[in-house]
Amino acid sequence: MADSPLKLSILGLGTVASGVVRILTAENEPVSRRAGRSFDIRHVAVRDVSKPRDVSLPDGVLTEDWQSAVSDPEVDVVVELMGGTMTARDAVLTAIAAGKHVITANKALLAEYGDEVFSAAREKGVCVAFEAAVAGGIPIIATVGRLLTGNRIRSISAILNGTSNFILSEMAGKRRPYDDVLAEAQALGYAEADPTMDVDGTDAAQKLVLLTQLALGKRVDLSQFIRQGIDTLELSDMLYAEELGYRIKLLAVTRVVDGQLEMHVQPTLLRADRAIAQTDGALNIVELEGDAVGQLVLSGAGAGQMPTASAVVADLVDVAIGRAQQTFPLLDLWQHDSRLSVLPPEKIERRYYLRFKVADKPHVIADIADILGRHEISLASIIQHEAPEVDATESGDVIVPLVIMTHRTTEGRLRSAESELRRLPTISAAIMRMPVAD
Amino acid sequence: MADSPLKLSILGLGTVASGVVRILTAENEPVSRRAGRSFDIRHVAVRDVSKPRDVSLPDGVLTEDWQSAVSDPEVDVVVELMGGTMTARDAVLTAIAAGKHVITANKALLAEYGDEVFSAAREKGVCVAFEAAVAGGIPIIATVGRLLTGNRIRSISAILNGTSNFILSEMAGKRRPYDDVLAEAQALGYAEADPTMDVDGTDAAQKLVLLTQLALGKRVDLSQFIRQGIDTLELSDMLYAEELGYRIKLLAVTRVVDGQLEMHVQPTLLRADRAIAQTDGALNIVELEGDAVGQLVLSGAGAGQMPTASAVVADLVDVAIGRAQQTFPLLDLWQHDSRLSVLPPEKIERRYYLRFKVADKPHVIADIADILGRHEISLASIIQHEAPEVDATESGDVIVPLVIMTHRTTEGRLRSAESELRRLPTISAAIMRMPVAD
Repeated sequence: MADSPLKLSILGLGTVASGVVRILTAENEPVSRRAGRSFDIRHVAVRDVSKPRDVSLPDGVLTEDWQSAVSDPEVDVVVELMGGTMTARDAVLTAIAAGKHVITANKALLAEYGDEVFSAAREKGVCVAFEAAVAGGIPIIATVGRLLTGNRIRSISAILNGTSNFILSEMAGKRRPYDDVLAEAQALGYAEADPTMDVDGTDAAQKLVLLTQLALGKRVDLSQFIRQGIDTLELSDMLYAEELGYRIKLLAVTRVVDGQLEMHVQPTLLRADRAIAQTDGALNIVELEGDAVGQLVLSGAGAGQMPTASAVVADLVDVAIGRAQQTFPLLDLWQHDSRLSVLPPEKIERRYYLRFKVADKPHVIADIADILGRHEISLASIIQHEAPEVDATESGDVIVPLVIMTHRTTEGRLRSAESELRRLPTISAAIMRMPVAD
Repeated sequence: MADSPLKLSILGLGTVASGVVRILTAENEPVSRRAGRSFDIRHVAVRDVSKPRDVSLPDGVLTEDWQSAVSDPEVDVVVELMGGTMTARDAVLTAIAAGKHVITANKALLAEYGDEVFSAAREKGVCVAFEAAVAGGIPIIATVGRLLTGNRIRSISAILNGTSNFILSEMAGKRRPYDDVLAEAQALGYAEADPTMDVDGTDAAQKLVLLTQLALGKRVDLSQFIRQGIDTLELSDMLYAEELGYRIKLLAVTRVVDGQLEMHVQPTLLRADRAIAQTDGALNIVELEGDAVGQLVLSGAGAGQMPTASAVVADLVDVAIGRAQQTFPLLDLWQHDSRLSVLPPEKIERRYYLRFKVADKPHVIADIADILGRHEISLASIIQHEAPEVDATESGDVIVPLVIMTHRTTEGRLRSAESELRRLPTISAAIMRMPVAD
């Protein structure tokens, strides 16, 4: 080891941070050899030093004072694994101001305050590395930022949220309703006590924002694209999709279409034979398309202690070697490519899956088809089974599900048609609508 | 652009080199921005400057004199895309001696002379980058060498040869015999006029040697592991595999088993529902297992002009930025980890697929089962169809195929059993044997 040890402060000692400590302190760890220098954990800032921990650290390393951990002039790099956006933002900006390199797994922080954090780092001449912020152990940040430098990336289609993918896989595989699976996932610790950010698509959307910025130099706000969660999916939707030859995944998509950026995070029907449709459980997958490389697919553990720690340690090695410092100022995080505008949602063109609950009366299908037709939406297929799940309205009508697959149309046309459809007295509940991937 | 242009010499102007030139000279190419400097192609060495080319280069760039191209004191980096091992070795060593960084896509060169080339570069303080040498556009060299630095890699299972995978996919998908498909692949230009290296497993084995050296710091010679080609496969093998729920792929495997290295390149039966079994056509796929990251899968175009050029350009950007120079001395190419020995082939334990052609006579199956049993090989399943392809020996016996799947056993036991089986007069042709992946 010619070089001096890399001195680090870790903020937080939850699951991932413990994993990082475990890798760095393991016997015969391979990390120092590959970095050309050793790692010296100077401070680990936690909220409560008296809490029992499953990793052992030398005396004096644990502290409740993140400010000193971040400002210690001896420290080279601050690893932010505390989560949240309030204190994390303070801590990261304080670290940058003190001239420390920053490694973070905090996609919420970067999706919300990325511009501020990246600009501060650039001005100060330090780097921000964030491999662990997207897709856990899958090295997608490096792939997009460093390994496809000869490419113009044209599209990203990805499963980026393990919790919702686990829920969808269980629903489809075991024919269990959403609420059941969610409750079990919470009991097993796969889902948070408050799973809102996972199941409503926010987490996946934050990751997509980061990937898009890195791949296309364009910062998009969450409010600029469609985000639809999995929390309104019924088990019947999984079964209809299967009958039609599809599987449903919470798909995050960025595509360049005629010089505009199409983006959305939605439960989406994917042909069952595609790799992405077969990505089950807590796995993540990213399908990229570059103009030179063609299609490139990466899949692996999108979360979990050691896979995420693997990504954090890769960043640490990059900082130790000096690669991260060279890479950061050249990333496409700053382009703000003015030629790329976000395609307004209404103009997005796709096929759609529509599931209605309708009164089992004459002329119902004709009414629906008429409205769709007047909005220039043509039907590709219809399913209405003879022995459906039976429900009844207050008026005593028998309610049956009706599924329609459309041909290609725009989101705008569909929205107009939908607002008319909602006024049909024979449609008894919210219309379920999902896009179908090409 | 603060830095001066990176000056390069390209050796060869075949398919891949033309792709590299095309990326670097395209209008609004994104490469210079990402590298922080521009690229200046000083020399392109070819065998015949008068041959018509589909890329345009400034006057004086094309030359038949590779020695001057390599030795020009102005040149920073030599991109070796001439192929072959004789002149390529000379050229690369000359470039290194002249203090140039080297980028090469030449797996044969590195599999055969890697130690010499890597050591020369290390001594001279230059780097050798070779992303394009394995799996074309898939950034597997970077992933193994730079992105999984917190992991001990435990296994690699991969499809690394596009030509043989194309042939196997066509045989299985279109029920066509080997010779037919090969002839078509050659006519279409997918297979070389002499496809030996592709179909006998040499190409995949060379790539596996490189990946293994990088992932495990252990240099293994091609003679130390089993290499079996696809050229003895019959269409019937594809059909039996399918009947049993498998697909056959030319699988390259490195695994650490009890501190020893199990390696082989063989047509292998893989459960049909696995992603690797569904990787068809000219695609490549690499499944890695690391102790922290768990399973990570990368798939994409394993060959072809632009995917391979994408990998070469990524290396060029790494050299331009200085990342490649920092990375190279720290790669696990030098460990020669003495604790890892190569597991002798006889000790490898797997299940096997055996296909016999036997005389349709009493006691044939009993004789085979008896020999296998005496070698402690137990049978998992047997297929002998009632209406088989009928053949006849000189003695007039009717010849029928018989397929046996064994339980787990060693290669050694199977080899002993096989040499006894070959002496059975009721077995009329070579025994086809393939491992079954776990």
